[in-house]
Amino acid sequence: MRPVIAQLEASKIREIANAGMGHKDVLAFWFGESDEVTPDVIRNAAIESLQSGETFYAQNCGLPELREALAQYTRESHPSADVDANRIVVTSGGVSALMLAVQALVDAGDEAVIITPVWPNLVAQPTIMGAQVRCVPLQPQGGAWGLDLPGLLKTITERTRLLIVNAPNNPTGWTLTREEQQQILAHCRRTGTWILADEVYEKLYYEPTPHGCAPSFLDIAQPEDRLLVAHSFSKSFLMTGWRMGWLVLPASLADAMGKLIEFNTSCASVFTQRAALAALAHRKEITPRVVEHFKTCRDTLVPLLAAVPGVQVAAAHGGMYAFFRLEGFDDSMTVAKRLVAEAGLGLAPGDAFAPEAQGWLRWCFASKDPSRLVEGVRRLKEWLEKQ
Amino acid sequence: MRPVIAQLEASKIREIANAGMGHKDVLAFWFGESDEVTPDVIRNAAIESLQSGETFYAQNCGLPELREALAQYTRESHPSADVDANRIVVTSGGVSALMLAVQALVDAGDEAVIITPVWPNLVAQPTIMGAQVRCVPLQPQGGAWGLDLPGLLKTITERTRLLIVNAPNNPTGWTLTREEQQQILAHCRRTGTWILADEVYEKLYYEPTPHGCAPSFLDIAQPEDRLLVAHSFSKSFLMTGWRMGWLVLPASLADAMGKLIEFNTSCASVFTQRAALAALAHRKEITPRVVEHFKTCRDTLVPLLAAVPGVQVAAAHGGMYAFFRLEGFDDSMTVAKRLVAEAGLGLAPGDAFAPEAQGWLRWCFASKDPSRLVEGVRRLKEWLEKQ
Repeated sequence: MRPVIAQLEASKIREIANAGMGHKDVLAFWFGESDEVTPDVIRNAAIESLQSGETFYAQNCGLPELREALAQYTRESHPSADVDANRIVVTSGGVSALMLAVQALVDAGDEAVIITPVWPNLVAQPTIMGAQVRCVPLQPQGGAWGLDLPGLLKTITERTRLLIVNAPNNPTGWTLTREEQQQILAHCRRTGTWILADEVYEKLYYEPTPHGCAPSFLDIAQPEDRLLVAHSFSKSFLMTGWRMGWLVLPASLADAMGKLIEFNTSCASVFTQRAALAALAHRKEITPRVVEHFKTCRDTLVPLLAAVPGVQVAAAHGGMYAFFRLEGFDDSMTVAKRLVAEAGLGLAPGDAFAPEAQGWLRWCFASKDPSRLVEGVRRLKEWLEKQ
Repeated sequence: MRPVIAQLEASKIREIANAGMGHKDVLAFWFGESDEVTPDVIRNAAIESLQSGETFYAQNCGLPELREALAQYTRESHPSADVDANRIVVTSGGVSALMLAVQALVDAGDEAVIITPVWPNLVAQPTIMGAQVRCVPLQPQGGAWGLDLPGLLKTITERTRLLIVNAPNNPTGWTLTREEQQQILAHCRRTGTWILADEVYEKLYYEPTPHGCAPSFLDIAQPEDRLLVAHSFSKSFLMTGWRMGWLVLPASLADAMGKLIEFNTSCASVFTQRAALAALAHRKEITPRVVEHFKTCRDTLVPLLAAVPGVQVAAAHGGMYAFFRLEGFDDSMTVAKRLVAEAGLGLAPGDAFAPEAQGWLRWCFASKDPSRLVEGVRRLKEWLEKQ
């Protein structure tokens, strides 16, 4: 095996989940996934496709009608972006979209800059391609995290091939402002650096906006800017297990991306693409309801958490996580394991996302029944009182 | 974009398929895919899974019950192989299995040796990882192709990180003998070279055998040999569009492969894995019928083709292709395009698979209705008579 693969860190989130599997009555909030089943209308589209016999290979870049529907969906959210179907490729999940982007751009030895704490996959992908990865940590400010923009811009030089940024951010809930996006884009134009923006949480945004989503690089970039935006059906459509995502990219990259899809996964299954088409057709019923519900979840959890002595937490602007610091417990993995075993509470350890998040915990608040969140806080509080 | 990605050759098979799409009444035999829909019992398992709400993330390496069923399936075909569930990982298609194996093993600058002509993905995958690829051509002997074993062994040295071999072979139908496998394995043990065996056609084997499949490296290797075997549900279970495959590997690699799956695709969807479980449960009805039918197809097509003046062809021992040379037509792409436009016959050009297969054509004989094959040969013959 390659040393770089042997040394890839195993998921600390999964380590906790595995630790929890032997225990009865654990309230699990460790994964980034709602516990609500995919809506019927989406499942039924896949079932009809299977019944009608759509079991053959499809186009590498996705069904033309799905690429078209995704382009329209993108234009709705980002009217100033000039996105047509030639700028869309369909991928087997958001993670595949991200990996394909990294394969297209990063040679072994290239430098990639990543803003952390972040979903560990984003650090692992350029590492797999042999890149030199430089992390730029967000700065904790009370319970929230903020960007050290001058520090980031200083780190991105002409030697930087790729900037990877996930905002709204998993796990911190941090979101880029428009002003920060503009400065980053202008700087990366000067250095010739590609931007890979993981914007899968753009719709899960709880601040007032004209188009119901977080600020996106698509709003300010030109079609041929060095920008790839990764998206997923997982969060906004409750479709985690389906493995459906897409990339928005310069049209000049679409053919190459089609080749990479051929060599990685060939294509997404047609019945899954039919489900995605149904999701988009019903986007105006599904996503607003999901977002409204997640906001209720956030607003249920965060005030209760904030009232627990020793907890530092802020309401996330976007995403589906409460990321909080627990005073007096500096080893996230130890406390996460103890919470599973002693309190029946399953949270993800902060250091799964970066060393600087040691001492933090991530709580996914996407729960069909918000009373689970209330009960979770009760368990946390009771456990803390015993310490 | 990376130069190596920009220079990846686009699929010449797809170029022909695209050329054919504007034409009515083209008999398409260009893709490696049967035109028969996946059996009901498999589709129904996915439908039931969707109806019951299995729409969440699953284990990186696959459902435990599917890994167990695949281990049992492997032991049935290869009784001497010591394969348990820890040596199986489930992947999103055979191509994903192959790409993951290459990611695990090949650093940029490493040398990979590949036996050609071959499915172009096998050459592209190490190229994407930055490898130096050395091709060892099979030798045409009349209408068949054979291995220059001494030439291969001379090419594999201590500098060779990985040998990639696809047998039964797409496109030639060539199959490794047991004796060749033994010599290759012994040699690779000496040089420390990993073997990645693409054995997805092992069940589509038309010679008499005790366990209904072609000779496999699994029959002769030890559990900790440097061997990964890639498999797919696509061919033996008529499941091309589903994107389900698996790897058999040393147990010591399974954890690392789970990480790579997390960073590439996360997991295969549960409803697709339920379909795979149904396929395995009904393996004794499905695969023998498929193989018997493909043999009928081969034995319909090959004698008719052989009787066409100027055609050099041999009956493939395995796989689902007739690979033939057409005397007087030395440019495969030109003749393939002319056959589409002038004869309504869609074949894949030989040079899609290697430069040495220039002048050859690949005909996928996996056709639900063998009379399509008869009509195809009639069109070829009629077209040739006009030249």
